[in-house]
Formats: sequence, structure tokens, C-alpha cells
Amino acid sequence: MGAKIVIDTLGGDNGAKVCVAGAVEGLKENPDVKLFLTGKKSKLEKLLSEYSYDRKRLEIVDCSEEITCHDAPVEAVRKKKDSSLVVGLNLIKEGKADAFISAGSSGAVLAGGQFVVGRAKGVKRTPLAPLIPTTEGSSLLIDCGANVDAKPEVLVQFAKMGSIYMENILGIKKPRVAIVNIGMEEEKGNALVKATYPLLKACESINFIGSIEAREIPFGGADVILTEAFVGNVILKLYEGLSKMILKEMKRAMTSTFKSKIGALMIKKSIKKTLSTFNASNKGGAPLLGLKGLVVKVHGNSKKEEFISAIQQCKTFVETDVSGKIIAGLTEEGTVTE
Amino acid sequence: MGAKIVIDTLGGDNGAKVCVAGAVEGLKENPDVKLFLTGKKSKLEKLLSEYSYDRKRLEIVDCSEEITCHDAPVEAVRKKKDSSLVVGLNLIKEGKADAFISAGSSGAVLAGGQFVVGRAKGVKRTPLAPLIPTTEGSSLLIDCGANVDAKPEVLVQFAKMGSIYMENILGIKKPRVAIVNIGMEEEKGNALVKATYPLLKACESINFIGSIEAREIPFGGADVILTEAFVGNVILKLYEGLSKMILKEMKRAMTSTFKSKIGALMIKKSIKKTLSTFNASNKGGAPLLGLKGLVVKVHGNSKKEEFISAIQQCKTFVETDVSGKIIAGLTEEGTVTE
Repeated sequence: MGAKIVIDTLGGDNGAKVCVAGAVEGLKENPDVKLFLTGKKSKLEKLLSEYSYDRKRLEIVDCSEEITCHDAPVEAVRKKKDSSLVVGLNLIKEGKADAFISAGSSGAVLAGGQFVVGRAKGVKRTPLAPLIPTTEGSSLLIDCGANVDAKPEVLVQFAKMGSIYMENILGIKKPRVAIVNIGMEEEKGNALVKATYPLLKACESINFIGSIEAREIPFGGADVILTEAFVGNVILKLYEGLSKMILKEMKRAMTSTFKSKIGALMIKKSIKKTLSTFNASNKGGAPLLGLKGLVVKVHGNSKKEEFISAIQQCKTFVETDVSGKIIAGLTEEGTVTE
Repeated sequence: MGAKIVIDTLGGDNGAKVCVAGAVEGLKENPDVKLFLTGKKSKLEKLLSEYSYDRKRLEIVDCSEEITCHDAPVEAVRKKKDSSLVVGLNLIKEGKADAFISAGSSGAVLAGGQFVVGRAKGVKRTPLAPLIPTTEGSSLLIDCGANVDAKPEVLVQFAKMGSIYMENILGIKKPRVAIVNIGMEEEKGNALVKATYPLLKACESINFIGSIEAREIPFGGADVILTEAFVGNVILKLYEGLSKMILKEMKRAMTSTFKSKIGALMIKKSIKKTLSTFNASNKGGAPLLGLKGLVVKVHGNSKKEEFISAIQQCKTFVETDVSGKIIAGLTEEGTVTE
């Protein structure tokens, strides 16, 4: 038996329906994967009754509670013990499953990852690290999580984690690490960047190439885009918003006249691949690195496709043992200084 | 006689040629404007000899030095007294001109603005505030300048300056001010945002609407997008890089097959306007607010069009006396606490 993956079916914007559709398809595409669905049993059974699938490889875990984005994350994780999120994370903690996927509240997934699954030994903070599309493929944006106002030594550890991730998951040898900055010169930056820069330069286990200005990020200027979580979150969300806005405006313009409508039909096939490049669903979810188990956050408004991608991604994570390699990498470095 | 505007013809990526072309066109379009060009006299005379223009309204000011982006900004401004930048800024200081435009080193323009022209009374810091394109028109992004790691009370003053700017220059009544954040709830954010939020909420002279997530910025979620300079710079540069990248990829896809090439020709006219929306040149330069005079930074790779826009923009600035109104607005508020 291969990877055992939990899907939290509550908390996402599109309900349990898309989770179930993704799960059934994911089972079909990955014949060695086993899935657990945490959520409302009766609802899940009803949704599943519309599909035929390998019942031995799908297990429903009934939960009486739900954590929503209106709940205060830390409190919700502590109090709602029978929520689909906490129950799912406990399956990871107890070793019954290898990976956990949720489209629920980011704050609750981050808090749950830390409090229920727990940080691995030597890990200072657990960054959320999504892949973002570039003209060269993908770059890892680390950190977009809850670690705002992080310390320099935390960013250095993130750089190491990101490098190990890109080397093992995307097969990039000596991934180029760059720190997000407002200029290319070493003396540029805010207090955090100025303090972190020399530490990165001195770090032998990463391939640090210096600063990256935000305008170079979409052109694949680095494999690991290092930044503290506030800036990372701004970059991730602006990527999302701006892509959406430009494509929307282009579409509107293309269909504004009869002539342009015909033209739009003629280019449709050619631009389809380009448009899908900016579709976050192809990149799977964002792993929360440095935990004792694997936790993956998918977008709140994820559809079936995102869950299929995330299942595939978790399978790769488990098979390559990326979590184990990150811990081993940090330990070898002698950075275990909790 | 109307506005007297200085153009620094050195330091930009495209040389004095584009400055001269823009200046001649700007003179033609604005019959009451007078221009000063600071730079190499012989070179400027040679370039100008190719045009016919109103010689009474254009004056060359010869300079023997140039500040480049390789110079340390503060030192360069102090030492290179006969540079086109410092000579130009001195024309503002001495009251001989009203506004100064430069495509030179951002750092040097910012340093020169503060050291040569000087902050107006009561102004804590001088933000760089460009307009960025949105689906609703434009928003003012404040600050993208050199004030990284700014204090909460500085951001509050920026919010006031930005409001006065948008009300007077774009004619927006009660401009909506939002602070860039990583979530919508009041308790979200990093230390700076958390400390600034209640101060903005308590500030009666602005229309504070709360937090804005980066994904809403391109959709015109606020008129004044308030953030400290590091994040502002990342937003501005990502806007630039991502727009460029998406349009480039779309163009590449559109011309990938014979059929799509024909289609592209058919939509060309319709999408032209949309494409130009993302063209920074239409938005003019970014003013450095809160100085005793008007300083406008245009993009390093500005072409003729950017200089024409900036001349037009400076004329509006001078005619509406936006600098004076900002100072008056801050003074009325009783925020003059230098």
C-alpha cells in the first residue's frame, strides 16, 4: 500500500461535493493510494453514492464539528476536538495517515499543523510554501504563512527547507535561493533583509544568489523566493489578483466587437495553455514545511481539479520522503538549536 | 506664465534624447509651461537643433557632473554639486522653478528631494506615491520610497497626504483609504499594521475603510493603498513584472500558429486600449510628497511619452497647488509635531 492521505471535506468554499469528486478521481489515477475523508458521514455517503470507486481504499471518518474562517484559529483548534480539521490532523499525529489536505481556514490549518501534528525537532517555525508560476516553470515562494515578523535565523532555515524541497520534489540541482528585496545591492533593504543577507551568504548548504526584485519573480529569477510571511502573502495574493484582473480585462476586450469575437475564437486554442499556466490549480496546494507529518493547504475556493493535484502531490511528497529529508538536512547542518 | 518645470536629462536609461523629445512635445501641448533642461549643454543643443520649438520657453542649464545608479545616493547628492540632479533641485529650492522631473537613480532623487529641497514643516517622512492601474481607473500606492521600517504615526501621515492628493488631483470625494494586510480582520497583520490600524480608525480626516488584501488591489478595492515602503516597492515592481510577463506570454501564444496569428490581427484593435491600461507611462511619474517643492520620479526606462505625461502632471500639480494643500491639510490636523 502506498500513501495514506486525509482530505478535510469541510471548510472549503465549494463544500464537500468537490472534495468527493476529487477523491474519487484521485483514487482512480493513483491505484496505490488510500484516502480518508473527514466530515459529515451522512452527507459524504450520499455524495459518494453517485460514484463507483474502490471502497477498500476510501474511508469516511465522521465528525460532528466544523471550523470556519469566522472562528479564531488557535481557539477553534483547541476547542473543536471533533472538527474535520482536528480529527484529520490527529490521523497524521497517530501515524494512521501520511498526509493531510484541507481547503479550510488558512489560520486554522497553520495552527492545527503546529499544535496537533507538531513541529519536527530543530524546526524553529513552519513556513507555508506554495509554488508560483513563472516563464521558466515554477518557483517556491517561502514563507506565505503565519510567521509574520520572523527573525533572520528563521529565514535562513526557510531557505534550507525550500532548497531541499525544490531539489527533491522538482528535481532541481542546487536550486537558486534569492531574498526578496527592493534593490539588488547588498546594502539595500529593510532591517530584516539587511540582517538576513550576510547569514544567507555564509550558509554553505544553499546556493544563495543574492537579492531579487519583485519584478523579476515572474521571469523565474530564482528557484526559491525567500521572504517573511507578510511580504510573501502580499506577493501570492497580488499574483492571484493581478493575473485574474489582466485575463478578465483581456477577455472583455477580445469580445467587445464582432470582429474581435471571431479573432478570439481563432486564438482560443493557442492561448488555452498559457491561460492554464496562471491557474493555481495545476500547481497543487501549499505544503506547511517542517512538521512531524505532511499538511497541505489548498486554496479556499478549490474545485475538483485542485484536490486531484493535491492528492498527486502528496503521493510524491510521501514517496520522496521530503519531510524526512528536510529534517535530516536541518540536522546535518547542525541547526538543531531549539 | 504658468508652471516652470525642470527636466533632469541625465541618469535615465534612454539618455537625453527622450527627454528632449518629450520636452519639445510637452511645450507644444502646454503653451503656458516653461521648461528648464539640466544636463550637458553641447549635447542638448545638438539634440534640440533637430526640432523647432518656442525658444523663449526652454532654457538649458549646463552641468558638468552626472549621478548614476552606481553612486551611493546620499553621498552623490552631497558631493556632486554640479550634477544635473542637484542643479535641478536647487532651481526648486531657490524658487526659480515649481517642479522637477527625473528618470535618474530613485535613491538619489529621494535623497536629493530631502536634502536639497527639504521636507515641509510638520512632515515626518516624504513618501513616493505612484498611481497604479486598476479595473476602476487608478489607485495611489503610498509609500514606495526609501522609508522602510516606518513607524505607525508616519503611515497615518501618509494616509492623510494620499487622501489630499487623490481628492485634489483625481477629484475623488472622500477617497477610500485601506491598509495593505494579510487578512481582513482587525486583529490580522504584522506588528506595524496592528499598531497602525487603530490610529487610522481614530483619524477623522480620512475615510479609512480597513484592511485590503493584495488580491483586491487590481480591482480598485481602495483609492489610497497604504503600506510601508518595502511592501509598497514589492507591490509596484510585481505589478510591473507580472503585467509584462502575462502580456508577453499571451502575445507569444497568440502568434504561435498561422490561425492564431490571423486571430491576433482581428483582436488587435480591441485589446490595444486594454494593453495601454497596463502601460505605466500613461499614469505619469510618482510624486515625492511632503517636500517644500514638487519632485516627480519617472521610471528609469522612460521614453518620450512618460516625459510628456509627467510635464502634464506637474502642470496639474502646480495649478491645483497640491503640495500647498498637503501642508495645509497636515497643519490643520494639528499633526505638526516635528
